[in-house]
Amino acid sequence: MSCCLSITLSKSKMLSACMRQVVRRYHNCTGKRKYLSDMFYSPAKSKHKEEYSCKSHRLLLANDIIYPCHSGAYYLLPFGQRVLEKLTRVIDDELQAIGGQKISMPTLAPSKLWRKTERWNTPELFKLKDRAETDYCLGPTHEELITDYVRQLHPLSYKRLPLMLYQITRKFRDEMAPKYGLLRGREFEMKDMYTFDATEENARVTYEIVCNAYDKIFKRLNLPFVKVAGATGNIGGKLSHEYHLPADIGQDQLLICEKCDFGLNKELVGAGDDEFGKHCHLKEINGIEVGHAFLLGTKYSEVLDACFVDKDGNTQVTKMGCFGLGVTRIIQASVEVLSVDDNIRWPEVIAPYHVCIIPQKEGYMADKFFSMANDLYDKLDSLPNLHDEILLDDRTQLTVGKRIKKANEMGLPYIVVVGRKALEEIPLFEVIETSEKRTFFASAEQVIEHMKNIQTV
Amino acid sequence: MSCCLSITLSKSKMLSACMRQVVRRYHNCTGKRKYLSDMFYSPAKSKHKEEYSCKSHRLLLANDIIYPCHSGAYYLLPFGQRVLEKLTRVIDDELQAIGGQKISMPTLAPSKLWRKTERWNTPELFKLKDRAETDYCLGPTHEELITDYVRQLHPLSYKRLPLMLYQITRKFRDEMAPKYGLLRGREFEMKDMYTFDATEENARVTYEIVCNAYDKIFKRLNLPFVKVAGATGNIGGKLSHEYHLPADIGQDQLLICEKCDFGLNKELVGAGDDEFGKHCHLKEINGIEVGHAFLLGTKYSEVLDACFVDKDGNTQVTKMGCFGLGVTRIIQASVEVLSVDDNIRWPEVIAPYHVCIIPQKEGYMADKFFSMANDLYDKLDSLPNLHDEILLDDRTQLTVGKRIKKANEMGLPYIVVVGRKALEEIPLFEVIETSEKRTFFASAEQVIEHMKNIQTV
Ligand SMILES: [Zn+2]
Ligand SMILES: [Zn+2]
Repeated sequence: MSCCLSITLSKSKMLSACMRQVVRRYHNCTGKRKYLSDMFYSPAKSKHKEEYSCKSHRLLLANDIIYPCHSGAYYLLPFGQRVLEKLTRVIDDELQAIGGQKISMPTLAPSKLWRKTERWNTPELFKLKDRAETDYCLGPTHEELITDYVRQLHPLSYKRLPLMLYQITRKFRDEMAPKYGLLRGREFEMKDMYTFDATEENARVTYEIVCNAYDKIFKRLNLPFVKVAGATGNIGGKLSHEYHLPADIGQDQLLICEKCDFGLNKELVGAGDDEFGKHCHLKEINGIEVGHAFLLGTKYSEVLDACFVDKDGNTQVTKMGCFGLGVTRIIQASVEVLSVDDNIRWPEVIAPYHVCIIPQKEGYMADKFFSMANDLYDKLDSLPNLHDEILLDDRTQLTVGKRIKKANEMGLPYIVVVGRKALEEIPLFEVIETSEKRTFFASAEQVIEHMKNIQTV
Repeated sequence: MSCCLSITLSKSKMLSACMRQVVRRYHNCTGKRKYLSDMFYSPAKSKHKEEYSCKSHRLLLANDIIYPCHSGAYYLLPFGQRVLEKLTRVIDDELQAIGGQKISMPTLAPSKLWRKTERWNTPELFKLKDRAETDYCLGPTHEELITDYVRQLHPLSYKRLPLMLYQITRKFRDEMAPKYGLLRGREFEMKDMYTFDATEENARVTYEIVCNAYDKIFKRLNLPFVKVAGATGNIGGKLSHEYHLPADIGQDQLLICEKCDFGLNKELVGAGDDEFGKHCHLKEINGIEVGHAFLLGTKYSEVLDACFVDKDGNTQVTKMGCFGLGVTRIIQASVEVLSVDDNIRWPEVIAPYHVCIIPQKEGYMADKFFSMANDLYDKLDSLPNLHDEILLDDRTQLTVGKRIKKANEMGLPYIVVVGRKALEEIPLFEVIETSEKRTFFASAEQVIEHMKNIQTV
């Protein structure tokens, strides 16, 4: 590639022993199979000084899912990144199935718009100036930007409604007291959808449609969730629901009916609708808020002039809804509510990897076990649902027991041990289903048969 | 879902005509097939006042790929978002194939680290304070954060090297004069990879490996690119290469050899190595910089103390490389160099959709054409490579010619017209390959046979 550069990979005779090491590693590792020895790089206990404040925070730190950077801001490490991307796909699936269109909006939000909606003085805003001394905030939510965009679509026909636009981007909030890892950070990934309708009646139907999609998302994740009537707070609007995962550390107190599926945030008690109390049997629980839906009406569209043209050619203000999901928050909240003792349990569909193969190391048979493990790897990896979902724990300096323990702690749903029974006439492998706490022996064909229906995303 | 909420989709008898419209739309649209009438919402010419400064900027605005928000910041609209996500997958593929591990780092970067590396006074930094008056910048690049992370891995064995960590996240730069749309914005998506090696020799091999992956990325995109020796600038380091797409509007002047594949950035002339001039035949071209590779050596790892433990148990400083790709910049630069007249041409693999089906509207046959178009849609969508890659342009108020023109302008690689010949005994469809400017008639089976090998990502 240059007249002068002498180090090229094609001239392999020029490679010294030390270069060969790099190149071998490059050819071995992730190019084809994922070996754990290539992947972990937290060499020992993390040295960070961060004190964990709850179980999920501790488990995410201990298993190299996140690493603290500064107050309320984390590195998302490779396994965490995979979980994030899978969760993103689940959300994309369900929101696009109802007609949601994905976009990205700028992070820097002009103060001009935030002053118009009288939200510029929100205390949690991170604010900054550019070199021309223009004021911006780092968007914690994007009602202003999306509404200003829709304003510019004028004249927008009623036939084009509802619009359902959403993004999954990083958001910012200057929290007074960042805490609980990803649960209350200053930077976080959030899904925010904004809907625009012609009438309030339509906006309510759209609201129900998006809530149905939320229900589907949490059901696909197999998460125990409750949906309660919520306060409208700083966002404002006419109707609001919150999605919570019940957990002791949850910051919200919820009142949940034991007989029907009604519930409300305790903040609402006394704030009006207390007729619920009469025909419901309410108990109090704590919840981690993971989603929020608001029927906004014209709060933003009126001020920011987001209109449509009706059947008769008249210009009217659109009726809005907004719908948030705390994406990184869902990741940690899931770990908080699903994990068992010191073992992470993921919503299975978003586990960082689905299968961990562990070859036994036993003297002269070690090579045989390793080669059988590789064969099984390739067979499982060639299943459409399991492509790139297999790990091989080649750290044979560790006992099989230690490696099983580690895979279990990480919450990998399936562990396959290649040990002595693999030497029998029909080789058998030990399959451990960590979530079911079930263990059985199976042939390669049975393993494949068993795993070809694992749900992945 | 609540004792009190009366609007539920299941009680459809309660739905008024107006609600039914919303629900019908919800069932029709993206749930199953993607109809263009549901998807475009820029009703007419964009009203934004932004003056475009080059062809690609104009084409992205005119085709609803981007929309201006404020100086150097854009909304990425649904088609643009799809292109971004596809390009991300191409980059992920190639970087993970060489052992790259994907992570996310915080956007807010503490001033403390940037002062240590003496980069805090970089004029393009966006700076802000949190409520505790602590200083941060919005990371334009993340050498400081990644190096500080690796520091904390101590003791890191030489056996774990090289580490190749990367992220694809939004970056910020307070440009003096934002211009050319996504080419020089203040917010942009960037891929940044950081590598850590034991020796300088190894770091050079890793450098070549990453550069090879870059070559593959640009080749998969079918982009005409040049790789030239580059200046190390503010990032610093020992060796640097830039990837450019040759274009008149390019901000860099490059000297390219007409006989071999050597080239360099003109900034370098006189700055040392002018021996090139002797044995190369250099011509001058302009280039849009889309990627950059730096061999950093110990510039950051020394100051920030990112070490490893060698074979003999001694602690040594790691040798670093860093590697950027301007992801949103590649999107616009591709349009700049590939587009023909008023028609966008995408790198085919990342086109927003691959096939656009256009049913003719002709009196009493309109329903027949529409139904055949739907059948063809379903057949093509069921091909593994084309799932979710098909659009149906149901805007039959427009002539076929107008819809073909629009699909061609948008750069959709394949257009299939369902017209009169579809009524023949063996129905024939008109296939237009926009990139090849080729048109032919084919049966449904032939269309499928033809399209089942389209490369998608
Ligand atoms: Zn009740
Ligand atoms: Zn030459």
